[in-house]
Amino acid sequence: MRTPRGGRYSGGVTFPVVGMVGGGQLARMTHEAGIPLGIKFKLLSDTPQDSAAQVVSDVVIGDYRDLGTLRDFARGCDVITFDHEHVPTEHLRALEADGIPVRPGPEALVHAQDKGVMRAKLTEIGAPCPRHRLVKDPADVVAFAEEGDGFPVILKTVRGGYDGKGVWFVRSPEDAAEPFKAGVPVLAEEKVDFVRELAANVVRSPHGQAVAYPVVESQQVDGVCDTVIAPAPNLDEGLALRAEELALRIAKELGVIGHLAVELFETSDGRILVNELAMRPHNSGHWTQDGAVTSQFANHVRAVLDLPLGDPRPRATWTVMANVLGGDYPDMYSAYLHCMARDPKLKIHMYGKDVKPGRKVGHVNTYGDDLDDVLERARHAAGYLRGTITE
Amino acid sequence: MRTPRGGRYSGGVTFPVVGMVGGGQLARMTHEAGIPLGIKFKLLSDTPQDSAAQVVSDVVIGDYRDLGTLRDFARGCDVITFDHEHVPTEHLRALEADGIPVRPGPEALVHAQDKGVMRAKLTEIGAPCPRHRLVKDPADVVAFAEEGDGFPVILKTVRGGYDGKGVWFVRSPEDAAEPFKAGVPVLAEEKVDFVRELAANVVRSPHGQAVAYPVVESQQVDGVCDTVIAPAPNLDEGLALRAEELALRIAKELGVIGHLAVELFETSDGRILVNELAMRPHNSGHWTQDGAVTSQFANHVRAVLDLPLGDPRPRATWTVMANVLGGDYPDMYSAYLHCMARDPKLKIHMYGKDVKPGRKVGHVNTYGDDLDDVLERARHAAGYLRGTITE
Repeated sequence: MRTPRGGRYSGGVTFPVVGMVGGGQLARMTHEAGIPLGIKFKLLSDTPQDSAAQVVSDVVIGDYRDLGTLRDFARGCDVITFDHEHVPTEHLRALEADGIPVRPGPEALVHAQDKGVMRAKLTEIGAPCPRHRLVKDPADVVAFAEEGDGFPVILKTVRGGYDGKGVWFVRSPEDAAEPFKAGVPVLAEEKVDFVRELAANVVRSPHGQAVAYPVVESQQVDGVCDTVIAPAPNLDEGLALRAEELALRIAKELGVIGHLAVELFETSDGRILVNELAMRPHNSGHWTQDGAVTSQFANHVRAVLDLPLGDPRPRATWTVMANVLGGDYPDMYSAYLHCMARDPKLKIHMYGKDVKPGRKVGHVNTYGDDLDDVLERARHAAGYLRGTITE
Repeated sequence: MRTPRGGRYSGGVTFPVVGMVGGGQLARMTHEAGIPLGIKFKLLSDTPQDSAAQVVSDVVIGDYRDLGTLRDFARGCDVITFDHEHVPTEHLRALEADGIPVRPGPEALVHAQDKGVMRAKLTEIGAPCPRHRLVKDPADVVAFAEEGDGFPVILKTVRGGYDGKGVWFVRSPEDAAEPFKAGVPVLAEEKVDFVRELAANVVRSPHGQAVAYPVVESQQVDGVCDTVIAPAPNLDEGLALRAEELALRIAKELGVIGHLAVELFETSDGRILVNELAMRPHNSGHWTQDGAVTSQFANHVRAVLDLPLGDPRPRATWTVMANVLGGDYPDMYSAYLHCMARDPKLKIHMYGKDVKPGRKVGHVNTYGDDLDDVLERARHAAGYLRGTITE
């Protein structure tokens, strides 16, 4: 016998309202993935021009840092989730106190907001991390370096950094002053001798069901994700399994609901170390839109609604995602002609953003059986859209 | 060297605006497919509650039968396309005279609007059709029957019918009066002795590029599409090729731009006959969302924008689409728990419509290597969502 469950049940309309805070491309693609599920999608966006606000019908324009705005927004929602991790923890607690499910909740999300809290918790649960310590001044940085292999060391502001921002590669004691100028807490980490970066993406629901996507290789250029290869080529099976289990364990121990990206270093001596956590759909999971049975976006929606999760397995031998960054050509649309004619299997995902040099404005996915071919197609398309490849 | 092309070029925003007339599920799914392309999607919808209006940001509420409304709507668009075929031909000509590209154009679309015009044109180009004739009264129907194998014959209003509406199965002269009561033109067709129904779906662009999806089998229940199997099982290769070529030829000869569905009868003596035409994304192509490299919706958008078309080939050995009709349970959402837990590969597509008995409110897609399994999964999910299967 079927009985109603969750959501708002007036008349025949029984589909829940998912409220997403933040109008970036992750919200845009979450909306896209939610349309087939028939759910109602409501957006809190800074401006009507934001990536997601361009394509969502039910948009509230407002400031997520304002509790009153958040409360008004949340009143029409069955659950609140996020395009980014910047909503203040105390606001999230207030929403929970109002009876609104917040997924992931503030107790989980803080680990993606504060790198100091994240490192402490991961260390507590035995998750392998680079050597790290909160540091209070340049002399403290020198002490941290001397406790290990000396300089270089990495300094990070514990809050607010992304895509290489808020991160310093410190080669000498003289370099160590800059990160302290903003007067915010700073975390020191050893410079890991890694052979490549991996990402383990998992999705977990309130029921505790969880799925793991295959571990991917993530290639960075200038601190920004450039290419993702799924699955990571030539990855030791045991290491892949350990990475998936690690991500599942982190999701469980931290109480994550929704998508969790665990960015990893693979070291030359066969270890994996946790680099960063993201508790939302993540750039390293964009390949799933065209390469997995269920995309990270669809599974994120299912998780926050406590629906059974979809199959995370790949649909192709290899899938490659290449980010499209802004270049010198403001008009990317005209590049579609060449890209689509050259590769009828190419999957373009643009975010509706104005093109600015270096800005992530979209990505492409390619898939197939021959990794060299799949990589070449993705890189060509991304380069052509950006304007760095002109033939 | 890249040069701008088409669209509106103010500042950095160069992506074109696609205007779609009609707020049904085809517009909803076209919007979904357009989001990754970064295009602007604008909708003319009867009400804000319509399926597509629920998920599109840029919606004009208005009556597509009113030329002034259409003109105002079209002013903000680079191209106009359709969720349905009901816009009056003279309005489409007026839009074209205003300089707005209308795709498909009125000269093509009339063949999907008027079954009399369609049959005359298909006969002219040598496309195989059931024996047919426009009839003026019941006596004329009797004459038509006697020219062939007698009763039963099929009567159809030449305009406005769909999903079995506007169609009569006439067993005797006494049955022949009803269709004439509305005072609209009526087409008589022989009752074809078909073994099954097929559909050949193609997409054509203004450049004349065209792609053909694999021919599918379409199973009807009570005149409404119930299940689609892609590709059509046990279909003779020569017949499949003839069907694809026929659809491509019809698209070219009729000047179709966008998606064209050619519904076919396969006869017991190995012929194919054209049953109906639809010039828009079509129920028999919904399987392409999860089963083809490029969906019918994405290719429709690419075609109306005169972009190179995407690969129409299947991604799975078998893909099955099963329509979800409204049943006795108004709350379909609660059925998600069972369906998603039972089949983590299931792809649900709901339209945001209130559930009414017999109404198409969604569909499901399944795919895999074992047709029996793929069929069972699709039928179980569709039946469970409807409420006809309760375990």
